[in-house]
Amino acid sequence: MAEEFDFISQLRQRAQVRSPVVTGIGDDAAVLQHHQSTREVVTTDMLMDGIDFIVGEAPPELIGRKCLAVNLSDLAAMGARPTAAFVAVALPRSEGRSFAERLFDGIFALADQFKVTIAGGDTNSWDGPLVVTVTAMGDVTKHGPVMRSGARDGDSIFVTGDCGGSIGGRHFSFTPRIAEAKRLLEILPVHAMIDISDGLAADLHHILEESDAGAVLDATAIPIHQDVSAELDPNSRLVKALGDGEDFELLFTIARQDEPKLLSQWDLPARISRIGMVTPPPEVWLRTADGTLQPLPKLGWSHELSHPTHSHRNHK
Amino acid sequence: MAEEFDFISQLRQRAQVRSPVVTGIGDDAAVLQHHQSTREVVTTDMLMDGIDFIVGEAPPELIGRKCLAVNLSDLAAMGARPTAAFVAVALPRSEGRSFAERLFDGIFALADQFKVTIAGGDTNSWDGPLVVTVTAMGDVTKHGPVMRSGARDGDSIFVTGDCGGSIGGRHFSFTPRIAEAKRLLEILPVHAMIDISDGLAADLHHILEESDAGAVLDATAIPIHQDVSAELDPNSRLVKALGDGEDFELLFTIARQDEPKLLSQWDLPARISRIGMVTPPPEVWLRTADGTLQPLPKLGWSHELSHPTHSHRNHK
Repeated sequence: MAEEFDFISQLRQRAQVRSPVVTGIGDDAAVLQHHQSTREVVTTDMLMDGIDFIVGEAPPELIGRKCLAVNLSDLAAMGARPTAAFVAVALPRSEGRSFAERLFDGIFALADQFKVTIAGGDTNSWDGPLVVTVTAMGDVTKHGPVMRSGARDGDSIFVTGDCGGSIGGRHFSFTPRIAEAKRLLEILPVHAMIDISDGLAADLHHILEESDAGAVLDATAIPIHQDVSAELDPNSRLVKALGDGEDFELLFTIARQDEPKLLSQWDLPARISRIGMVTPPPEVWLRTADGTLQPLPKLGWSHELSHPTHSHRNHK
Repeated sequence: MAEEFDFISQLRQRAQVRSPVVTGIGDDAAVLQHHQSTREVVTTDMLMDGIDFIVGEAPPELIGRKCLAVNLSDLAAMGARPTAAFVAVALPRSEGRSFAERLFDGIFALADQFKVTIAGGDTNSWDGPLVVTVTAMGDVTKHGPVMRSGARDGDSIFVTGDCGGSIGGRHFSFTPRIAEAKRLLEILPVHAMIDISDGLAADLHHILEESDAGAVLDATAIPIHQDVSAELDPNSRLVKALGDGEDFELLFTIARQDEPKLLSQWDLPARISRIGMVTPPPEVWLRTADGTLQPLPKLGWSHELSHPTHSHRNHK
């Protein structure tokens, strides 16, 4: 596996977990238990110019919005309701004050939409590129948090919305699936969940590794976004849906017998698609249209430490 | 006032505070109340190459240590016990893997010393300079949190340790005053507290602004660190103690009648010095050795948005 994950698993081994932390490095967010009845979910993401956005090509409002949105997506993947966020910025001096104001306009607009308090941060300026770190917190009901590690043999694998082609602009404009996660947990127990940042295939592998499980995905069931060019051949379109990443859709598993309940009670506009099932480890297969099985590669952004990637794992 | 503070006060006005946040932007940290009996304190600091440290001049372990230590100092200034920290890094690709490992060695060593769980983060690499954002959390006893806004007319002003000259190395090696803050709160009510990052004079002004108070500082009572060159004239040494910053000492106010109690019960190695008293606003005076009063300038690092500063206020 890539060197960055190797480094992160090393950090994970070294990070002794002490109260009030109950779950540390390794999922979409950490879980803290401050009191018998209250659990808190915390996630942090650092976004950088030239990697997660390009200053000068995207409006500062969209850049700010994305920096908060990717964190809210992580909270959604835990089944958490966002409450507060902290925003640390290194502002390029050359961009001036109006850039900073517009960046925060985008942050505050999304914060207000989701009733998240911007509760603090750290404002710096320098001659380097823009860097934004958001740390977001949320709380969970008795139905959460949902970890990556809960997938069980025989589970059905679902995904919200459509995948692929987010680089066309959806990686800025997506709406974090907070409402969808909340509704899911009201309807039924969700065994495992992750938000798709690295790509459907890569993030499915994250769930399966944490759950010590395998899977079979149905190629014909993968919902391909209309942002993926219709002029591509079918296989190239599928590869983009599986590998592009930054879809920020929810990928989750439920007990097979709960499928009818989910499908009959699901009442939000975002569609949900059953795309496969969980099997015993370690094989992960893609069943193609003609019924043959082929290994599902860990497509998606590379996590080489030597490559400018941004993986949305909590160390990460 | 400088443009950066102006920008931060603008952010503060826009940031609507919603439960569980009870205190947001403006102090050393935010306060969240998840349950009637549990309050949580959260702070975040972003440290950057060329501003807070220079990669290549300081060992990576010391850089990592400082990135966590400044956050623990903020928690100390709130009277909080640190519990968890989240570490987001943008690693310069040119420095390679061993640099990253040594950086985290420094972080983990301090985390272990203070029993702080490194509960998550985000690891990235790029061609830009090193950026580290740490978000730290803590809890408070019934005696805390201690805000900047609690100073009252007639209060005595105290400082732990000695000030000035930290650029010689102490800004890396200082021990966050967690134990001192804890002991203070066991002994007596602390009305207002801040950690000295911008400089004694500047941080005193932060307390006084938040408390709507003035003060008289006694020049002869300011504890000047031995790191301040003895070859300087007395006035230059005083200016360094008042203005150098990054001392990470605690500056706090208590009721005058509690002074004997504090002085008789104080039993930690760090000395505490009474350096002045709180008066009605708005004047802030420095009483010199000959008894004359002169206005105390807001010495310390500039907070111009156009200047590479790092102020340790929660937006900041």
